[in-house]
Amino acid sequence: MERIKLIVEYDGTNFCGYQVQPGKRTVEKELEDALEKIYQVKVKTFASGRTDAGVHALGAVLHYDEPKTLKKPINAQTINAFLPSDVKVVGLEVVDDTFDARFTAKKKTYWYKFYLSRVERPLFENRALRVNDNIDIGKMCEACKYLIGEHDFTSFVARKSGKTNFVRTIFDAKIIAAHDYYIFEITGNGFLYNMVRIIMGTLINVGKGIIEPSDVIQIIKAKNRAKAGKTMPANSLYLLKVEY
Amino acid sequence: MERIKLIVEYDGTNFCGYQVQPGKRTVEKELEDALEKIYQVKVKTFASGRTDAGVHALGAVLHYDEPKTLKKPINAQTINAFLPSDVKVVGLEVVDDTFDARFTAKKKTYWYKFYLSRVERPLFENRALRVNDNIDIGKMCEACKYLIGEHDFTSFVARKSGKTNFVRTIFDAKIIAAHDYYIFEITGNGFLYNMVRIIMGTLINVGKGIIEPSDVIQIIKAKNRAKAGKTMPANSLYLLKVEY
Repeated sequence: MERIKLIVEYDGTNFCGYQVQPGKRTVEKELEDALEKIYQVKVKTFASGRTDAGVHALGAVLHYDEPKTLKKPINAQTINAFLPSDVKVVGLEVVDDTFDARFTAKKKTYWYKFYLSRVERPLFENRALRVNDNIDIGKMCEACKYLIGEHDFTSFVARKSGKTNFVRTIFDAKIIAAHDYYIFEITGNGFLYNMVRIIMGTLINVGKGIIEPSDVIQIIKAKNRAKAGKTMPANSLYLLKVEY
Repeated sequence: MERIKLIVEYDGTNFCGYQVQPGKRTVEKELEDALEKIYQVKVKTFASGRTDAGVHALGAVLHYDEPKTLKKPINAQTINAFLPSDVKVVGLEVVDDTFDARFTAKKKTYWYKFYLSRVERPLFENRALRVNDNIDIGKMCEACKYLIGEHDFTSFVARKSGKTNFVRTIFDAKIIAAHDYYIFEITGNGFLYNMVRIIMGTLINVGKGIIEPSDVIQIIKAKNRAKAGKTMPANSLYLLKVEY
């Protein structure tokens, strides 16, 4: 009976988010149902975090303790045989008992994908945000610099939900030019509720020339949600990886 | 009343291919239905070619002659308002009467997307082919060189369907490394039925070491379908663009 770490990819389009909710199709429910079929008893999983409805993951992490020893050690293929096509285990490791998917996470990286077009593009439906092509990507790159470091991100949190500490450290934030789209990539020690989506809305205001890149400094200082940009849609956000 | 050229993007997943078929959901039907709503009469469109069920397009081209003059000149947004989210007009131009989407096409470029993984990846479902990670991309790149030029592609056609001329010119063929996947990109003056998908199957045999890159020369010379690789799935093929 081992502690197992799973790395999971999912297309969030047809899920009501990560966390189990009665009567709803969630990623966690699909994973726990698959494990129950394998171990023949209920298995509780512990995730690095939750994602909202529509959010995707390329490398979400969770762990569980095996309720019994199987005849053949567990592997990704075995679990995947019990999973639907929109969620799959892409990595599996036996880990030490000190590993905890949530509490020992050191860094998380998110992607927010966007593309420049005057019309909606079907192949980006539920996958990337459309932005008009008169946006200044250079200014958005410059604004990213001001996010890096330890800051109080009160201006970038949707609702405070009982949390009292809004200080987070951003290790890196940048815009990556991909084939026919862009990726805003951000790595931090943790993220507040809707934080990446609100940062993205703020960066788009920079790209559109509504605010200047250096205004990001003032928005952080203000500690006021009203100063930051709109919350961008969930369906273009991806949890890329969690590092321990 | 003008001749209009449309550039169209579609996600082929939920279409029974491009061409109108009674009782089936096709790209052509959606486009002609949208135009009929705008012009209030049936509108016949002429496409650069057909794609099979599941095949996607980033830049399919078609033309039609306006049956009447509208009060306000037609534009992409007007047509898109009558189209579902999985097919959209991404470009629209008024063209000369000598333009014909099918007969004046000079070059077509296709993409075939694949990714390396031991397990299926949900975000590539219906979008890219999974290939095991022990494949040699370098050898696949080398094999591409032998496709370039004017050749008889009889070995790479699914069924002969009345055609007698199997000679086509390939202007370029290469493997592009994208963010977390690869693209096989091929440009030619025309393609036979299933030709790109059979070439892809042959390149995968090269990558797996089943055949050597230079064996592509012999396969072309053989003019025998049995010598080439399997037909790879439709859902990872994209019509990228048509040049005139």
